[in-house]
Amino acid sequence: MKLHQRREFLLTGVAGGVTAGVAAWGARRLNGQQQATRESLIEDVVTANHILAAQEIVDAFGHVSVRTAPGAGRYLISRSVAPAQVTAADILELDLDSKPVGSEKRTSYRERFIHGEIYRVRPDVMSIVHCHAAALIPFGITRIPLRPVYHNSFFVGEGVPVFEIREGGGDTDMLVSTPELGRALAKALGNKPAVLMRGHGAVIVGKHIIEAVARSVYLEVNARVQAQAMSMGQRVTYLDEGEVRKRTEDPDPYGRAWDLWKRQAAR
Amino acid sequence: MKLHQRREFLLTGVAGGVTAGVAAWGARRLNGQQQATRESLIEDVVTANHILAAQEIVDAFGHVSVRTAPGAGRYLISRSVAPAQVTAADILELDLDSKPVGSEKRTSYRERFIHGEIYRVRPDVMSIVHCHAAALIPFGITRIPLRPVYHNSFFVGEGVPVFEIREGGGDTDMLVSTPELGRALAKALGNKPAVLMRGHGAVIVGKHIIEAVARSVYLEVNARVQAQAMSMGQRVTYLDEGEVRKRTEDPDPYGRAWDLWKRQAAR
Amino acid sequence: MKLHQRREFLLTGVAGGVTAGVAAWGARRLNGQQQATRESLIEDVVTANHILAAQEIVDAFGHVSVRTAPGAGRYLISRSVAPAQVTAADILELDLDSKPVGSEKRTSYRERFIHGEIYRVRPDVMSIVHCHAAALIPFGITRIPLRPVYHNSFFVGEGVPVFEIREGGGDTDMLVSTPELGRALAKALGNKPAVLMRGHGAVIVGKHIIEAVARSVYLEVNARVQAQAMSMGQRVTYLDEGEVRKRTEDPDPYGRAWDLWKRQAAR
Amino acid sequence: MKLHQRREFLLTGVAGGVTAGVAAWGARRLNGQQQATRESLIEDVVTANHILAAQEIVDAFGHVSVRTAPGAGRYLISRSVAPAQVTAADILELDLDSKPVGSEKRTSYRERFIHGEIYRVRPDVMSIVHCHAAALIPFGITRIPLRPVYHNSFFVGEGVPVFEIREGGGDTDMLVSTPELGRALAKALGNKPAVLMRGHGAVIVGKHIIEAVARSVYLEVNARVQAQAMSMGQRVTYLDEGEVRKRTEDPDPYGRAWDLWKRQAAR
Repeated sequence: MKLHQRREFLLTGVAGGVTAGVAAWGARRLNGQQQATRESLIEDVVTANHILAAQEIVDAFGHVSVRTAPGAGRYLISRSVAPAQVTAADILELDLDSKPVGSEKRTSYRERFIHGEIYRVRPDVMSIVHCHAAALIPFGITRIPLRPVYHNSFFVGEGVPVFEIREGGGDTDMLVSTPELGRALAKALGNKPAVLMRGHGAVIVGKHIIEAVARSVYLEVNARVQAQAMSMGQRVTYLDEGEVRKRTEDPDPYGRAWDLWKRQAAR
Repeated sequence: MKLHQRREFLLTGVAGGVTAGVAAWGARRLNGQQQATRESLIEDVVTANHILAAQEIVDAFGHVSVRTAPGAGRYLISRSVAPAQVTAADILELDLDSKPVGSEKRTSYRERFIHGEIYRVRPDVMSIVHCHAAALIPFGITRIPLRPVYHNSFFVGEGVPVFEIREGGGDTDMLVSTPELGRALAKALGNKPAVLMRGHGAVIVGKHIIEAVARSVYLEVNARVQAQAMSMGQRVTYLDEGEVRKRTEDPDPYGRAWDLWKRQAAR
Repeated sequence: MKLHQRREFLLTGVAGGVTAGVAAWGARRLNGQQQATRESLIEDVVTANHILAAQEIVDAFGHVSVRTAPGAGRYLISRSVAPAQVTAADILELDLDSKPVGSEKRTSYRERFIHGEIYRVRPDVMSIVHCHAAALIPFGITRIPLRPVYHNSFFVGEGVPVFEIREGGGDTDMLVSTPELGRALAKALGNKPAVLMRGHGAVIVGKHIIEAVARSVYLEVNARVQAQAMSMGQRVTYLDEGEVRKRTEDPDPYGRAWDLWKRQAAR
Repeated sequence: MKLHQRREFLLTGVAGGVTAGVAAWGARRLNGQQQATRESLIEDVVTANHILAAQEIVDAFGHVSVRTAPGAGRYLISRSVAPAQVTAADILELDLDSKPVGSEKRTSYRERFIHGEIYRVRPDVMSIVHCHAAALIPFGITRIPLRPVYHNSFFVGEGVPVFEIREGGGDTDMLVSTPELGRALAKALGNKPAVLMRGHGAVIVGKHIIEAVARSVYLEVNARVQAQAMSMGQRVTYLDEGEVRKRTEDPDPYGRAWDLWKRQAAR
């Protein structure tokens, strides 16, 4: 089964009714499922913000969102505050044009279009992270491709393209602050798990919030390990296509991490 | 608009009366404005010291100052203690000769002339940081130019010269401990946002204290990312002139960081 | 005396009755001795988990086990939770087929076969650590041999082979999740103190839990130091065979570390 | 004035009576002076242990000592425990043969001879640190000379030789565990501020405990900065002889650091 087919299969499975296997992941972990309460979704977004800050994937900047339900045209994201400081009261609901729904007057991040435009074209994506992790920047500005060096970063083997904002955008302030730039970024991402942004950072997606957060953590680890290995001047053995595919079949490779990171972030 | 023109424009805007746009940054954030109370200025200097220590930009050494008002010939800086230990009671007021005003008997840092001499020739500068961050030293001693690799370090694109104290100073103890050396440093800085000091550290300036502190943080990030990218042996794509200029037009690129850093420093 | 002979000598010494010299290490430290209570063994496994997490040798993943007694076909290991979160209630007893003994219904880690299959063929081994420390991965994927650069990492001089799961295993999900893969890993380890796993991590063994944990910590230090030294482009002087052998004769090279690490992990 | 002359001058100054200038450093800071109470000396050794651990110059291993008075043939050092865990009750008094004085039955570190043998031949030395800081090891094993890159590490310019224990010692367990090896190390140190130990660590000396501790901290910083700068492939400008000499004339370059580090270590 091809990776993107598998994604659609999973999406169908989730949208069409929780299967036994999926149910075993625990209801809290499947934020996309229809039974997830709004409260638990908000709690997950708050927790994800705190985890990403504690893991030093984001600093004062960066954001994370979750789609409200499979197939839904809405997503939850914080108003414009630093991830470590996000509380439930800061979470806004935006539509795919990245406009607040209802009578909401507060605004989210200037780069909220990253989220709306990816959700629009990637029905399989239920959660999105945007970060500036320093270890990722050298790969974006040198165009040396990220390749999978570590089994928990296996998803890197699906491909991590680079978004060059100059292509189409010309000279910008580097921020994805318009729907057009959001669409260009979503196009660069394609059907991949993540995209680097040249001189800026990265966007990482997932079929649920745990996957988006864990991929963010392990994308950064992969970058550090790969850079170190490449500097040692010998041929590097990367995970091959078969290994990536087999590892992808694990329904819950990161579940154990979420609870630990949540506890660590709470300190 | 050229960068230095923009600076003067901003200075005029601030000195000539707080404009609506500027007011929106929040009174606390514009330490240069005439309405800022002495108490809030002192609080900001104390906070900046704690932030720089918590962010590991300074260790036991290094200092940060703020000009008392636009166009004023006075600045606030701590007496000679480690940044993490500075309290409001430690803050002194110095004139542009870097002498304490009034009956003050306590003395500030031996290198206080860095501050006085830069304030003298840079009316746009309202705050100055001096640090020894380890990641900056290699660029000063190799003369490899710092160039902007990361959008939050865009100001690096305005140029970061290197101050060689031997030029003019001959053999010194490396410290900018006289008015003459302070003037030589100010000359090396020119109209730039920062200057490296060979074998010593850096001086970073800003139009307010948030800018001086945030530039210090992101100058260090830029150095680490640039060194890593250069070591990878491929051509590096830097922010170009247009990108630097556009990013510079953001009136408050770092506001969100200050509150987070302040909270983190308080722990 | 050859290293593997020394190991067998020690094993005999322990199994056959606590000698005066051995007794001096302290009863708590010799988890293999018959007098060790089950409670103290469980406490040691819990502490080892917390130490490895606090020392950042493991993150959300990784595990550590201890054999119940010299020559015993049983070992203690946590059920499948993150090392930092392991408590005494999580510790299970498994046989050499890595199946829980008695009426235990909970399951341990998917890669528990690492432990069972090594205990089966290495009677000298009383404790095993599996980790993913990032500094180790580059050596596994480049096949640059780890060599001893630092006296506290002397055991590296006994040899640290690399386990290539593709050899025999073909395309896998990289996990040692079957008895067969466990046996292949044990074969790659041979009579050595540790084995790297390509694109995955490492397994470290010891004649008691302190040794397994301390070797894990200092294997990681050695990797960082060796990579740095090799990057400096000069000939590197490694510990020679005689130095490794002499250092190996120290009956308790790491005892002082355990108490400190335990205290640090408790914070 | 030559550096070693300056050292003797200072020693004379201290031993012959506290001069005005010297007194200004504060009595607590001149542990060598005759007025220092035994209690304050012990407190300083305890604090130095905690500082070195908190600054990550030592881990579970390493030690620091102080001579009891100028010209005295006694020094204070902890019994064999990890630096972070040292308390006043652990401090022992040893003679220059590194034997406990009086009826003391407890023993200090196996490598205590490092201290006794250096105090014996270096009357100017009042305090000694032994550490294994990872950043120092690559310089010892590659024989790339440490050179001063950073003004607070100026003392590196006086020279940092490398002790090769094989010369004279042959194959050892790498530990300086005999008077003979201690004498060989002291000879390698000569009249320098520090000596690297190949594959092991370093020994750093000072005319008081603040200097020994601060030099340990800044020796490690220098190693990191120098390695980074050298890797960037350009000519590196080091502090020159005149700069080193001038910086050496500062009577108290690190005083401000001690209080900060002490507070940080107490947390």
